Amino acid sequence: MADGGKNSIVLRKKEECKWDLVSLGEVMLRLDPGDVRVATARQFNAWEGGGEYNVARGLRRCFGLKTAVVTALADNPVGRLLEDLMLQGGVDQSHVQWVKYDGVGRTTRNGINFTERGFGVRAALGCSDRGNTAVSQLKPGQIDWDEIFGKEGARWLHTGGIFCALSESTAEVAKEAMASARKYGTIISYDLNYRDSLWKSIGGKAKATEVNRDLASYVDVMIGNEEDFTAALGFQIEGAGEDLGELDSMPNLEIFDRVGGGDSFASGLIYGFLSEKGADWAVNCGCAHGALAMTTPGDTTMATIDEVLRTMKGGGARVQR
Amino acid sequence: MADGGKNSIVLRKKEECKWDLVSLGEVMLRLDPGDVRVATARQFNAWEGGGEYNVARGLRRCFGLKTAVVTALADNPVGRLLEDLMLQGGVDQSHVQWVKYDGVGRTTRNGINFTERGFGVRAALGCSDRGNTAVSQLKPGQIDWDEIFGKEGARWLHTGGIFCALSESTAEVAKEAMASARKYGTIISYDLNYRDSLWKSIGGKAKATEVNRDLASYVDVMIGNEEDFTAALGFQIEGAGEDLGELDSMPNLEIFDRVGGGDSFASGLIYGFLSEKGADWAVNCGCAHGALAMTTPGDTTMATIDEVLRTMKGGGARVQR
Amino acid sequence: MADGGKNSIVLRKKEECKWDLVSLGEVMLRLDPGDVRVATARQFNAWEGGGEYNVARGLRRCFGLKTAVVTALADNPVGRLLEDLMLQGGVDQSHVQWVKYDGVGRTTRNGINFTERGFGVRAALGCSDRGNTAVSQLKPGQIDWDEIFGKEGARWLHTGGIFCALSESTAEVAKEAMASARKYGTIISYDLNYRDSLWKSIGGKAKATEVNRDLASYVDVMIGNEEDFTAALGFQIEGAGEDLGELDSMPNLEIFDRVGGGDSFASGLIYGFLSEKGADWAVNCGCAHGALAMTTPGDTTMATIDEVLRTMKGGGARVQR
Amino acid sequence: MADGGKNSIVLRKKEECKWDLVSLGEVMLRLDPGDVRVATARQFNAWEGGGEYNVARGLRRCFGLKTAVVTALADNPVGRLLEDLMLQGGVDQSHVQWVKYDGVGRTTRNGINFTERGFGVRAALGCSDRGNTAVSQLKPGQIDWDEIFGKEGARWLHTGGIFCALSESTAEVAKEAMASARKYGTIISYDLNYRDSLWKSIGGKAKATEVNRDLASYVDVMIGNEEDFTAALGFQIEGAGEDLGELDSMPNLEIFDRVGGGDSFASGLIYGFLSEKGADWAVNCGCAHGALAMTTPGDTTMATIDEVLRTMKGGGARVQR
Amino acid sequence: MADGGKNSIVLRKKEECKWDLVSLGEVMLRLDPGDVRVATARQFNAWEGGGEYNVARGLRRCFGLKTAVVTALADNPVGRLLEDLMLQGGVDQSHVQWVKYDGVGRTTRNGINFTERGFGVRAALGCSDRGNTAVSQLKPGQIDWDEIFGKEGARWLHTGGIFCALSESTAEVAKEAMASARKYGTIISYDLNYRDSLWKSIGGKAKATEVNRDLASYVDVMIGNEEDFTAALGFQIEGAGEDLGELDSMPNLEIFDRVGGGDSFASGLIYGFLSEKGADWAVNCGCAHGALAMTTPGDTTMATIDEVLRTMKGGGARVQR
Amino acid sequence: MADGGKNSIVLRKKEECKWDLVSLGEVMLRLDPGDVRVATARQFNAWEGGGEYNVARGLRRCFGLKTAVVTALADNPVGRLLEDLMLQGGVDQSHVQWVKYDGVGRTTRNGINFTERGFGVRAALGCSDRGNTAVSQLKPGQIDWDEIFGKEGARWLHTGGIFCALSESTAEVAKEAMASARKYGTIISYDLNYRDSLWKSIGGKAKATEVNRDLASYVDVMIGNEEDFTAALGFQIEGAGEDLGELDSMPNLEIFDRVGGGDSFASGLIYGFLSEKGADWAVNCGCAHGALAMTTPGDTTMATIDEVLRTMKGGGARVQR
Repeated sequence: MADGGKNSIVLRKKEECKWDLVSLGEVMLRLDPGDVRVATARQFNAWEGGGEYNVARGLRRCFGLKTAVVTALADNPVGRLLEDLMLQGGVDQSHVQWVKYDGVGRTTRNGINFTERGFGVRAALGCSDRGNTAVSQLKPGQIDWDEIFGKEGARWLHTGGIFCALSESTAEVAKEAMASARKYGTIISYDLNYRDSLWKSIGGKAKATEVNRDLASYVDVMIGNEEDFTAALGFQIEGAGEDLGELDSMPNLEIFDRVGGGDSFASGLIYGFLSEKGADWAVNCGCAHGALAMTTPGDTTMATIDEVLRTMKGGGARVQR
Repeated sequence: MADGGKNSIVLRKKEECKWDLVSLGEVMLRLDPGDVRVATARQFNAWEGGGEYNVARGLRRCFGLKTAVVTALADNPVGRLLEDLMLQGGVDQSHVQWVKYDGVGRTTRNGINFTERGFGVRAALGCSDRGNTAVSQLKPGQIDWDEIFGKEGARWLHTGGIFCALSESTAEVAKEAMASARKYGTIISYDLNYRDSLWKSIGGKAKATEVNRDLASYVDVMIGNEEDFTAALGFQIEGAGEDLGELDSMPNLEIFDRVGGGDSFASGLIYGFLSEKGADWAVNCGCAHGALAMTTPGDTTMATIDEVLRTMKGGGARVQR
Repeated sequence: MADGGKNSIVLRKKEECKWDLVSLGEVMLRLDPGDVRVATARQFNAWEGGGEYNVARGLRRCFGLKTAVVTALADNPVGRLLEDLMLQGGVDQSHVQWVKYDGVGRTTRNGINFTERGFGVRAALGCSDRGNTAVSQLKPGQIDWDEIFGKEGARWLHTGGIFCALSESTAEVAKEAMASARKYGTIISYDLNYRDSLWKSIGGKAKATEVNRDLASYVDVMIGNEEDFTAALGFQIEGAGEDLGELDSMPNLEIFDRVGGGDSFASGLIYGFLSEKGADWAVNCGCAHGALAMTTPGDTTMATIDEVLRTMKGGGARVQR
Repeated sequence: MADGGKNSIVLRKKEECKWDLVSLGEVMLRLDPGDVRVATARQFNAWEGGGEYNVARGLRRCFGLKTAVVTALADNPVGRLLEDLMLQGGVDQSHVQWVKYDGVGRTTRNGINFTERGFGVRAALGCSDRGNTAVSQLKPGQIDWDEIFGKEGARWLHTGGIFCALSESTAEVAKEAMASARKYGTIISYDLNYRDSLWKSIGGKAKATEVNRDLASYVDVMIGNEEDFTAALGFQIEGAGEDLGELDSMPNLEIFDRVGGGDSFASGLIYGFLSEKGADWAVNCGCAHGALAMTTPGDTTMATIDEVLRTMKGGGARVQR
Repeated sequence: MADGGKNSIVLRKKEECKWDLVSLGEVMLRLDPGDVRVATARQFNAWEGGGEYNVARGLRRCFGLKTAVVTALADNPVGRLLEDLMLQGGVDQSHVQWVKYDGVGRTTRNGINFTERGFGVRAALGCSDRGNTAVSQLKPGQIDWDEIFGKEGARWLHTGGIFCALSESTAEVAKEAMASARKYGTIISYDLNYRDSLWKSIGGKAKATEVNRDLASYVDVMIGNEEDFTAALGFQIEGAGEDLGELDSMPNLEIFDRVGGGDSFASGLIYGFLSEKGADWAVNCGCAHGALAMTTPGDTTMATIDEVLRTMKGGGARVQR
Repeated sequence: MADGGKNSIVLRKKEECKWDLVSLGEVMLRLDPGDVRVATARQFNAWEGGGEYNVARGLRRCFGLKTAVVTALADNPVGRLLEDLMLQGGVDQSHVQWVKYDGVGRTTRNGINFTERGFGVRAALGCSDRGNTAVSQLKPGQIDWDEIFGKEGARWLHTGGIFCALSESTAEVAKEAMASARKYGTIISYDLNYRDSLWKSIGGKAKATEVNRDLASYVDVMIGNEEDFTAALGFQIEGAGEDLGELDSMPNLEIFDRVGGGDSFASGLIYGFLSEKGADWAVNCGCAHGALAMTTPGDTTMATIDEVLRTMKGGGARVQR
């Protein structure tokens, strides 16, 4: 995490904004085989997830803030399942664009990933199936950003490198969103989240660097691990060490499902900034939230704010009753 | 079911053929929400299925014949899950073409359907997500039909109207397969299985009629209900009434999962022909097998040949032990 | 169902109201043992439910209307589970009152019911555990009805005889709500839902009659079966026969879980009135929706509006794909 | 059911007997694949069951009587699972004989059956694996019948044709038990339960007839369907028609799991005799209990006595709450 | 654990006692969300549990002793589920008092707790819902203690600080039980189990100290951790260190479900005393049993005595077969 | 693992062999209670397993080789379930001998084991029930080894000490197989797998030593841990230390289900030899494969060859996507 060289973050007032945070990104159906492997399973648990969306969900369900997601979905039972899961997630869907389904998935579809949580020496494994999704076909001009950042008002916009790698047009949509956010004084965070598989067919690392550098100028809070900064921005950040929250370096962390841990770090971090507790507190909050989120299945948090605060204080594991 | 105006079916000898039947078609992952709806489920059961494949599977697992499937799959964990399910299904996979996966599903993917079994007044409901699948990109020249029908030998080829509606090229592949089959004396069956959603973006009913009529000249056993014959072939078959096996007209049939019932009818029917029991016996066998297949979840049969024979004799439901 | 002697229902305009319908009632956790009995189960499925709430949920998730629930919950993990379930249900919770929990349930708690769905000759069986719930302690003056019916605006208020039997004060709260609703032109429906167990310790049938008759003067649409009208109002309604929708008389209805069928009838009926389709259409819509809701587990609907419309037209059970 | 030509049943007094009924028979582990088939399942539910034991369990859990089982089990985790299941069943195990296990099952083992419940045209199917079980090796002299019928006292002894077909020695044990029961005035019932598979390797129908006829002279209440009387006793019972309770002839009985229905008929019937309600009431009670037992999974009842009484009166299926 | 300053424990003879141990306490239904959180679960596993009862269950199922529970339950399906679970637990229920249920839970109910097992940094979390339970309304004079300790005979009475915090009257019932036990030479153990939430509305820590000190004079074996001794008795026990068994200090203990670990410590400890192995052995037995009990879900043990003995000897984790 | 004093392993050419490996051994149904104990479970997962078979399955599904199993099964639904599981396992079954079932399991049956995976201090626990199995009755002369090793051709034969302990005749069958394998140049491996319970009733350790020593002269690759070498061969192997792969000594190995870990070690090892990578690589491959196999439930591997290679290189546990 780096705060873009700024000394301080100046937030819009809560009372003049409908949203504490708006996320722009893809929401996928995660099919999770539990204790076994995707390739041998006969049963899957269903969760919703998406790098950018998970941040909005965490802020809503763990931290009690008002958040919305901007995305697009194909209007079929899978899309409606995602609606059902997002309703449970509490993230407002009034800015979700529903695209007519052709009945077979030739023109537009919804993203699905089959993701295992791993165990011990066996790494978590994801197979994403997100070609031709509705959200990857989103184009500039389709979202009314003035409505969102102007009329409704939002204190924070979160998006990231996964959304921007979906297609040429999604990076343009992100830029359009950031420009509008900046106009209205909305703080902008961006999670680099570099994924080789997404970039390789649309220009590779070189293109990723070009796209991300172009967007970086709009970003107030840039999130990523060292590899992300190197791969997605193409340079080594000197002196950034002290601002980096490294979730993986926490000692002896017992992990149930590591998928989405970074996103829960981001939502804890942003909660710290939104509640104006300072960067140190925010990073600690991010780490605590990320650690708790990895104790349950699914990409997203099931923790409460009380548990985050107790974990930040090093609270033990005795039975609470 | 109509036998194409022929008076009799002359089969190749079993001892000179490696396969009793080869199916050409798509194999999809079926995700089944059990007692609830796709749009509200949190857990799915996984089955494999495909109109043409189901026939090969039924002949293998219920009737003990040797069958193979010709299809293509993207090589990712979902494809490997389909491999695992087809291994369980016993259908030989040596003619499955594995296509490299791009990591995200932009260039090629595997077909998935989210299908409910329905209950009482609530109809079964399917949402298929099969755009851009590996099998839909199959082209003439990619399969060595001489190997299959010549060197290895096959008594029967089964394909159908779903496979031929996947793309322009799949209809051509079917035609190529049929021509080769005919050359080697292999009997050809074709299940019309008309699906509006598949045809509407590639020429609609007119195109369907054109494609199916073109293929019909190769077909020895044409399978379909009245609607299929009308929609997919564009004409009323006079005098065909007596050859039609109508599964739905069986009285008081208690159904657990109706999906795939027609395919199990087809495999029972083909078993009748392959064992040279005559058309009446074959139709009865198809009806019994279809009825039994609908008493269990999933697209495919879990019945045994003994149960089919007992059902054909009107055997009751007392405990067998 | 009786329309209270009025000739027509005059609705407030949709554009001047935040809510299509507001429900006032208890929301309980339903623990459902699936295929076995409560008394022998080792696993329970969790659903939320409540006679009045179910109507708001059905209008939101099946019919797409905007609805809210007015209720009170104890703030503990069970209450938060109900919040999670209601989020999934899509019913707005901004008017839910959260009451501090004492850690053990002596002063206030959340309602729970252990309810089986029955099978064949074995009736559905419910064990409700709702003593001392937060909602039963709701008192006049605690809800800002002017905010709801005046400032926000609501087209319809739904409450009923279960809520009014929770305690002396809940009947007073209902009366207060109705008076406010009437003041602002909001249509009022009331589902009699007579339950002997609720009334017997607080005055029995005589008290029920007194309470319900007192409230009846505010009611525009009174819902109940013949037994309800007799037991809860204490008289035979002459000439009401033609307005009565009797769900149980539908022929050959295959039922998966009958619990909540009446509530789904009510939401279908109210949808008919809210969309101004006339009483006949509304009753048919109620019957179709009730029938569909009973094909899935849980108290509440999993049907879509398209399925309701198809069922009203007598649509069959063929696979939809 | 036939009462052996006697005009009346004279029971020992309840207060002088520790047991209302003692059953002598095998207790097996039932592994039940739920909605699928044994041969395709990946998960099984575990129940305990045994024709004679089920009667003792039904009398204990549905009708509240004190019952014990006399059987033998191999002392391994499967035997201990049966102990755990029988504890839940409430049947006293102080007369269970525990036999040392050899670690591999060569010398003695516990009976297991893999049994499906069937659906519609597909019959229930059982695969029993009961060779070499501890109970089949039970020999005369190993059980202290004077302790059971004399010192402790029992009003009723139930055993049957399955136990007596396990081995030569089990029939002798049954005879020994009956002789002792008769000595102490204990009523004896015997369920013929003819199973071809059990008899065929130990003498077939001829041997079954010989064994059962020999035992019949001790029996006060003989239970069986027409086929049982013919196959297991070798003659047509004239004039017995009016005493026969035929569970299968009940109209429109919706069945979830038919396995064990006959045993629940027997326990209802015996309850009628033990509570001295007369033969008609007893037969009706048997039918009602059998019908209810078939609405739940497993071999044994999950009904309550209130439900049996309500069913005998033709009580409907409305929600009870 | 402290032995109350006595040098030795003198037990009644086994042959003159019907019960090895009698427990006095509440039995609750535990609803356990498995790997997820109470507040996000859709499925719960059901177990029975209660601090005092768990000790009786452990002695019965792991150590093979004869134990009974004295408690009260409301007679509804939840109570009958507890009966079913306790039957499986093997603890005698002849001294359970069944209280008529009012159908809604206003006058009396059964205790329920929704308890998570925790994982890594996320603590176990319990939400107990035990207000107005049948057992909390138990009053002196309702239990025939002379029957239990005199006529039937019991070697040990176990009760504790949870039961005594349920209401004013339960502490009186405990005192009454202890006085009777002492009269007949029954050893008395008491697990302090201090719970702030139970005491805070009925006098707080001061009242807890008063109640527990009053009872302490009857107690032969007092069980608790340091916090319990401080909070529940109000003083520091000097020199008690060597008698304290501290389960939490065991190195590297891998825990599946920590709930109930202390109760299994207590049952192992009491087993040691009841089998007269000396205090050291007893404490080791308690630790081993507690550790094993925490390797399985639920509040209670699933260990065997052989496993306890092997664990006491430091037996490894190789496959036993 | 010891290579029998030979300096090198000379393999038959792949192109002249139908099978890369043929296993001779028992295949049992494993019933696995998941997180609980066999003796308290109500649900079991079903897997197939067998020490010798698991090696063939691992080579087929993880390493992509062609393998077959030689065994015998009773032809009943349990046998057909094993067929279904082995189909999924991909191991060819054309050499499985199907034996007629007598309906009750007196003459022949299928092996079953109830095996828990253990957790922390609680060891894995197995209860095998394999008396009188079809495979234990296999006799010399029943298998056409010339067909397998001569006509079809096999590069490797694997069998072991479990199969040879099933009965006198199975050791003779193993010897017969080895002699034939040697004749055709097939490499022979043997996993000692000493089990006291199997040997104790047929001659004990002395007999085991005699049988295993007799067979050892045929063995090219002998597999076992130190205890196996001592118990099953009766001597200490000097200087063998450097050839021993000890799976248990791997540091910090997090284990989900340790059952079958040794068999997966063996298949990884054999893969190394079959691909001619040298003994060190083979041992490392065995360790990596064994470690991965223990991260999933069931006796057999769910790993991919890519994961094995990555683990051999010390690949971390980051999400792969």
